[in-house]
Amino acid sequence: MTIEYATRYRARSHIPPEPGRPYFIEKGMGDRALLFTDLITIYAGGEQTENTFNFFTCEGPKGDTIPAHRHADTYEVFYITDGAVRLFVEDLDGGQHERLLTGGDFGFVPKNCPHAYRIERHHSRIVGVAAGPGGTFERFFETLGTPLEEQTPRGPFVPEPHKFGAAAREHDVLFMPDHEWRNDGR
Amino acid sequence: MTIEYATRYRARSHIPPEPGRPYFIEKGMGDRALLFTDLITIYAGGEQTENTFNFFTCEGPKGDTIPAHRHADTYEVFYITDGAVRLFVEDLDGGQHERLLTGGDFGFVPKNCPHAYRIERHHSRIVGVAAGPGGTFERFFETLGTPLEEQTPRGPFVPEPHKFGAAAREHDVLFMPDHEWRNDGR
Repeated sequence: MTIEYATRYRARSHIPPEPGRPYFIEKGMGDRALLFTDLITIYAGGEQTENTFNFFTCEGPKGDTIPAHRHADTYEVFYITDGAVRLFVEDLDGGQHERLLTGGDFGFVPKNCPHAYRIERHHSRIVGVAAGPGGTFERFFETLGTPLEEQTPRGPFVPEPHKFGAAAREHDVLFMPDHEWRNDGR
Repeated sequence: MTIEYATRYRARSHIPPEPGRPYFIEKGMGDRALLFTDLITIYAGGEQTENTFNFFTCEGPKGDTIPAHRHADTYEVFYITDGAVRLFVEDLDGGQHERLLTGGDFGFVPKNCPHAYRIERHHSRIVGVAAGPGGTFERFFETLGTPLEEQTPRGPFVPEPHKFGAAAREHDVLFMPDHEWRNDGR
């Protein structure tokens, strides 16, 4: 059960490539990717669950609000285990809501609701599930960002501008560059 | 966004009854249920995700190994945020595996794999997702156990023996009373 596997995503992974096999992963040892300053670690993807759900963490330093976006077919969970994260979400009637979430707090973003977050304490960690009837989107982060071998990212990874469109289309992400949060929580 | 709702499960809940609405829930304020000594708190259920996934926590004192069981159609995630939990799982070839999981560690149990856990430190907390192509099973805990209004359970809730069968059938749980763990981790 401490075997490493080669998968289509990583030369070395603790996630078995074939479904149906139980496994354990130590803290931090999932499939890692860096996108801007956030470290995303995947512990289970669509392959493990018949595309029903996934499970990942997002850790990062205090930073800026990420770009507003929505998903046409993906529901998203934000569960904070460490630090503090401000979640911004707009409902389908255009009402905007923001909340500072700390350890043990939870936020739910339905499909089609514009959303963003801002990490407000260093070493914050979000547990995430992001999936819907059309599948799961955990590999978006390494498609737009970069897979990471080492535990600790060195410096931010800024994607080339031309990569945004294709990565977003492939993984049910619609960026909303003109979107504004009327209350930015400051 | 601090509204309380009446739903089919609770007279007062922070989970909106209709899907498509974003929401936040403070730590511990989801739909609670007590089963034996474990406090289960639901933050999102099948209604919120078109039956794709759910999200709950399970908190409990140091205790005994729960009854071995399997799910025909449900994949299950165990992610530990606090304490220590020993996870037992048998693969489809009959190989048995056990691992002591502590904060940040992860275990994955595919459908049809017999499994159980034992909480080995007081105040442990598991984050769980349990779902599959056939739906989600988060209401099993209150069907076999009991819904809980208060934050802190008073004493264990032991279901009447005749309730096990119906609750299990309704929620894709198959208890395996004759199953043995060859290595019980002690």
